[in-house]
Amino acid sequence: MRVDLSPIRQFLKTATPVEWCQAAVADLDTLVLDHANCEMKAAQTALSLIYRYPEHAALCQQLSRLAREELRHFEQVQRWLDRLGIQRRKLGPARYAGALLGATSDRDPDRLRQRLIVGALIEARSCERFAALLDFLPDELEPFYRGLLESESRHFGNYLSLAEPLVTNLDEHDADIERLTILEAELITGPDTILRFHSGVPTLARVDGELESATVPA
Amino acid sequence: MRVDLSPIRQFLKTATPVEWCQAAVADLDTLVLDHANCEMKAAQTALSLIYRYPEHAALCQQLSRLAREELRHFEQVQRWLDRLGIQRRKLGPARYAGALLGATSDRDPDRLRQRLIVGALIEARSCERFAALLDFLPDELEPFYRGLLESESRHFGNYLSLAEPLVTNLDEHDADIERLTILEAELITGPDTILRFHSGVPTLARVDGELESATVPA
Repeated sequence: MRVDLSPIRQFLKTATPVEWCQAAVADLDTLVLDHANCEMKAAQTALSLIYRYPEHAALCQQLSRLAREELRHFEQVQRWLDRLGIQRRKLGPARYAGALLGATSDRDPDRLRQRLIVGALIEARSCERFAALLDFLPDELEPFYRGLLESESRHFGNYLSLAEPLVTNLDEHDADIERLTILEAELITGPDTILRFHSGVPTLARVDGELESATVPA
Repeated sequence: MRVDLSPIRQFLKTATPVEWCQAAVADLDTLVLDHANCEMKAAQTALSLIYRYPEHAALCQQLSRLAREELRHFEQVQRWLDRLGIQRRKLGPARYAGALLGATSDRDPDRLRQRLIVGALIEARSCERFAALLDFLPDELEPFYRGLLESESRHFGNYLSLAEPLVTNLDEHDADIERLTILEAELITGPDTILRFHSGVPTLARVDGELESATVPA
């Protein structure tokens, strides 16, 4: 593999559980549909930062380019939905991004700096998850996901670099990274009742694309 | 001029008042800053439609491409802010888009169809306004705005075409277009206390980039 994933694996506290990969390929429709959502939401998140922080010129320019790249991927995933005959439907979100953003400050300058850490985490996990999926994916899809690894690993670095000029206290910044990466690992390794691109360890029974909680009698 | 503006001038009920052009070039900082906002918000609006209507495959694909083009323009305007030495600051919105969207249905399928008409109106006005500005702009900026005419005129047609498959009653659709274009013309020709890319006829006194209402004693 040409992409060096070691910085991403060092950044994240945990690897994707094999149970998630198995559940994901067993419900490929939901996985690919939610992947399309993720690309779109990544673009939306970048635009909302641009809208809120117009005075940060370099940030705006870089996030706009990043949003364009996410939208190109969105269009590619849309074409895969057609090729695979997957019917489009609206999916509710995973708990993942909401929980991470909920753990950031609501006051600047911490808000922006911490949200950029969350951006780095989401991109890092996406990249790690693409790599984890490669051995499980149908042959026709594998090259597409392999191709996305490179850009997602670049986006992880972009978000971390954008946070750097905002750091005034390195200990505080490191503590924020530590706290948010721990939370991220909990979301990825904790049990989860729905399958999404960023969901946790799936509980057992599955009903119509939604994993049903194992504690609920079938 | 290579771009045929006659379909746009037929669609809109009124031309940009010359008073707006004069006020706009007299406060070029605000104009260019707000133009950057408009490109960004056009992309955001496209993404919010994609997010809400994932089952409309062709619409999602076209709006994603359109959003990417708006973002390329956003990045170009950002570079012009640097070249012209315009300091970045947050600007409040014009009344324009909010008033137009407020006049659309909150229930589908009318909501989507009417919002696509509003999208066409905003793109048409942007195009008409770029053309109206050409004779007033400083020489260095003129080629940039002339270059944007072509894509904006294309976007106007894109939005109208996206609405077409949703039309079940042509009389109703025509009546919606008539109602929304009349409102749009009122917003463009009515007096307005702030200068923005889509603001109305400016009132006289101006204080620090905001036009102060002529009815308020200076």
